[in-house]
Amino acid sequence: MVRIDFQTSPELYNHWKLDFDGPVATVTMDVDPESGLVPGYELKLNSYDLGVDIELYDAVMRLKFEHPEVKVVLLRSGKDKVFCAGANIRMLSQSSHNHKVNFCKFTNETRNTIEVAQDDSDQTWVCVVNGTAAGGGYELALATDYIVLIDDNASSVSLPEVPLLAVLPGTGGLTRVTDKRKVRRDRADIFCTLEEGIRGSRAVDWRLVDETVKGSALEERLGELTAEFAGKSNRPDNAAGVKLPPLDREFTDDGVRYSTLEVEVSKETGVATLTVKGPTQDAPADGDAAAAEGAEFWPLRLCRELDDAILHLRANELTAGIWSLKTEGDPARVLAYDALLEKGQENWFLHEVFSYWKRTVKRLDVTSRTLIALAEPGSCFAGFLAEIMFAADRSFMFEGTEEGDNRHEAELTLSAANFGPLPMANGLSRLETRFLGEMESFESAKAATSQTLSAVRAAELGLVTDAFDDIDWDDEVRIMLEERISFSPDGLTGMEANLRFPGPETMETKIFGRLTAWQNWIFQRPNAVGEDGALLKYGTGVRASYDKKRV
Amino acid sequence: MVRIDFQTSPELYNHWKLDFDGPVATVTMDVDPESGLVPGYELKLNSYDLGVDIELYDAVMRLKFEHPEVKVVLLRSGKDKVFCAGANIRMLSQSSHNHKVNFCKFTNETRNTIEVAQDDSDQTWVCVVNGTAAGGGYELALATDYIVLIDDNASSVSLPEVPLLAVLPGTGGLTRVTDKRKVRRDRADIFCTLEEGIRGSRAVDWRLVDETVKGSALEERLGELTAEFAGKSNRPDNAAGVKLPPLDREFTDDGVRYSTLEVEVSKETGVATLTVKGPTQDAPADGDAAAAEGAEFWPLRLCRELDDAILHLRANELTAGIWSLKTEGDPARVLAYDALLEKGQENWFLHEVFSYWKRTVKRLDVTSRTLIALAEPGSCFAGFLAEIMFAADRSFMFEGTEEGDNRHEAELTLSAANFGPLPMANGLSRLETRFLGEMESFESAKAATSQTLSAVRAAELGLVTDAFDDIDWDDEVRIMLEERISFSPDGLTGMEANLRFPGPETMETKIFGRLTAWQNWIFQRPNAVGEDGALLKYGTGVRASYDKKRV
Repeated sequence: MVRIDFQTSPELYNHWKLDFDGPVATVTMDVDPESGLVPGYELKLNSYDLGVDIELYDAVMRLKFEHPEVKVVLLRSGKDKVFCAGANIRMLSQSSHNHKVNFCKFTNETRNTIEVAQDDSDQTWVCVVNGTAAGGGYELALATDYIVLIDDNASSVSLPEVPLLAVLPGTGGLTRVTDKRKVRRDRADIFCTLEEGIRGSRAVDWRLVDETVKGSALEERLGELTAEFAGKSNRPDNAAGVKLPPLDREFTDDGVRYSTLEVEVSKETGVATLTVKGPTQDAPADGDAAAAEGAEFWPLRLCRELDDAILHLRANELTAGIWSLKTEGDPARVLAYDALLEKGQENWFLHEVFSYWKRTVKRLDVTSRTLIALAEPGSCFAGFLAEIMFAADRSFMFEGTEEGDNRHEAELTLSAANFGPLPMANGLSRLETRFLGEMESFESAKAATSQTLSAVRAAELGLVTDAFDDIDWDDEVRIMLEERISFSPDGLTGMEANLRFPGPETMETKIFGRLTAWQNWIFQRPNAVGEDGALLKYGTGVRASYDKKRV
Repeated sequence: MVRIDFQTSPELYNHWKLDFDGPVATVTMDVDPESGLVPGYELKLNSYDLGVDIELYDAVMRLKFEHPEVKVVLLRSGKDKVFCAGANIRMLSQSSHNHKVNFCKFTNETRNTIEVAQDDSDQTWVCVVNGTAAGGGYELALATDYIVLIDDNASSVSLPEVPLLAVLPGTGGLTRVTDKRKVRRDRADIFCTLEEGIRGSRAVDWRLVDETVKGSALEERLGELTAEFAGKSNRPDNAAGVKLPPLDREFTDDGVRYSTLEVEVSKETGVATLTVKGPTQDAPADGDAAAAEGAEFWPLRLCRELDDAILHLRANELTAGIWSLKTEGDPARVLAYDALLEKGQENWFLHEVFSYWKRTVKRLDVTSRTLIALAEPGSCFAGFLAEIMFAADRSFMFEGTEEGDNRHEAELTLSAANFGPLPMANGLSRLETRFLGEMESFESAKAATSQTLSAVRAAELGLVTDAFDDIDWDDEVRIMLEERISFSPDGLTGMEANLRFPGPETMETKIFGRLTAWQNWIFQRPNAVGEDGALLKYGTGVRASYDKKRV
């Protein structure tokens, strides 16, 4: 199997163009039909595959880090009379179930990252729909903050998946229609069954878009809009951007080695071990010093590398069903970085890094793999880095050390970062979610902030699942991993998706929980993917034939 | 195919026994292994199939209506050393996908109805777990308000579905563990992968049960508990119960005729038409007079008949993918009943009827069929009855009348019942949900309470999807139905499940949205249902073999 690589950069883009004009950046989608990620389909009409989205994600992140001056992003199509036709159908119909699901997850996460640009980075995305925005094309528009629809006979928005393909819009469309744009439910029902979609003033009346504009008045109106949104942004005018160079990354026979992270995949046991390496230098003095370090700044390197590792493992290591999450390094140094990040949120760069970390741990949360945190001697789970422990399904801590091991005992230190600024998709911090049923445990954990907690103490406080000493550690960990790997991967995926998100729900949890699960179900149903199903029959001139029984 | 009948009564029960002792009723589960609903499996160890659950649902409803004096319900097992082994595995492995999904939906709804007994009827359910409560057995316990676990070597609670069967607990177990009992997430993870389950004090520490008690002290402790819960209940001491006689129901070649409801199923078009008939008598003067009418009281008859019709159509008419919802009768009479119900909530009987209506419309909400409300001349959508219009995916109202038709024009009247006391599963009223994005429309609708709204006015207010006059009505309705029936049933099921529940989420929406969708997905996966999957291999001595790829 060819390895899917999630790294790229603007000079390598096949499908996107970036232009800059002071506080306004223009991101132009101009998909090259011949440059699909794998052979077998043509990316006509600005339809996309995973490769197109990998470039988009790269662009979104560069706009945040390399362009602090950009306050408004215009998302436009480079094609005439078509904004975007959505995910490529031939690509979908030739893809495995795994690939379809993984593709949808990544595109969903990229849409979320666009929304974060507004929420965290004060960068407003404005989408200009010229021509058709169909399916994933409209879902891309839905991820932006403001949708301008050209008022002509050709421009429309639609979600034609159900009538045309017997599947659901795969990138949050239904949820964003009902919960973000709050379209009345019967109108949403009509809209989602209308192949040709909706245009003109009706699209505005139904809140599917924010405004329509005649083609002739477009550029002037965009000038007004970008000026208005730019005026409201607090992004710095004159800060220097931080370049994101290629990752320091080496693929080996059994994994990947990054500068702050080592990934080892055992094909034999089905366990991938991710070991985060703590900082080897002291934290810089302040935000400016951190920005001067640029992409070398340890937390940013870690974010980028962990992000890449998660995406790589999800896409390319399907049988690695368990990820064991480890750290090694000096907890004091981690805490110094933690303090810098936490206190320096006024600084745009530190703010971006923290926001990136928030997204990266959320990526862990929605990863369909069992996550086990193992805190061993020499580890450095502390502050923001401890969030990966709290993202795990289970966590174990080593009590004491083994004879002859001169590394420090495993310890855990909480900081303010664990109590609010890094929420899960449900809007709560991971510790609040963990202790939903025991406020007193939550308060005890909070009171223990800044204390160096031993394994025994962390277990008493309920911060880890269990603590074992050197007599039991190896056996306990081995038995747990062996047992886990013997279970059905699908059963585990469903179970984890439900157990990880107690408490409140948000648009984000709805998309990854409810909507994704229904889509996955439909992606298994003969009416969609069977020989006579809609995906294979699409474009053949032959109608799909459906089993009419409702489930 | 044999028709599944949801009607029964205690003298016909195969699996349950009811005993009464003043304010305490005891519901004893004692499943007859030989009395499965269909041949092919034995219901050993108090395992259950749909037939067992149909009787349980009947018992729950009779406890509410026939026994106003019952304040506490003890749920016990009639078997030695086993409480309940959950859904019968052989039944599951021989069932069609449709049946499995429909079975889980009904059992879920019955568990919700048990929870409503506490919330609405002030009847506390106490579950006594003697022996194993495994899978659906523990899920049944989870639906009660208080779980007592015998402290011995045999009594335990478990959710062994993932390790044993490669499926999820199908009756809300995961969600109730995390959201109702708020078990810490890593403990929930351990619990849900532990075949043998958890017993004794650990079950209390982890909040899986409320208390443990030694077998020798059990009856004394139950005496204390029931006295305590009974003391807190406001149910009346001396009211006469309302008997629930067999339904006035006749199956015909193309449907079912009830006293307040006619159901016609067109095999040809795939449309089932449900016509509710308004009251033919004036409403009684007050709650006592209503209770004196007993099961003849029009709203109660309607509830029971609509409830039965929904369950019948779901289970027995799988290809009827569209339900067209109609009413006919005198709106003024409906409104008189509405006023009686709404103002008489202090009366236990009216309160029970209203609560039953709330549950019945919720059953519509989670029904996997397209719901279309058609308000024609002579119809009586008003007050609480209009909720079935607001439950529909789309609604059309006839403007004016056809020449020669001497029925009254279609009209709609809102009442206080539409603004709070009949919430959806998301906790909001259907109108609040409808107008989530337009508070001004919500306020306008509220201001129009008690007004007789014409089709045009109702459409202006956004209360119906559209209004058509006699020139367009037939074509518009026909085209809409034809188009709908041409779509993939699975696509529609997924779409409707997402569009119907905007806004906040609750444990109930999580169970029917997120959890159900994941379970349905898993029920399609070879690892669970394939030839080498866990469901078919269970009990054969041969291990299931799994495709290890994570999705």
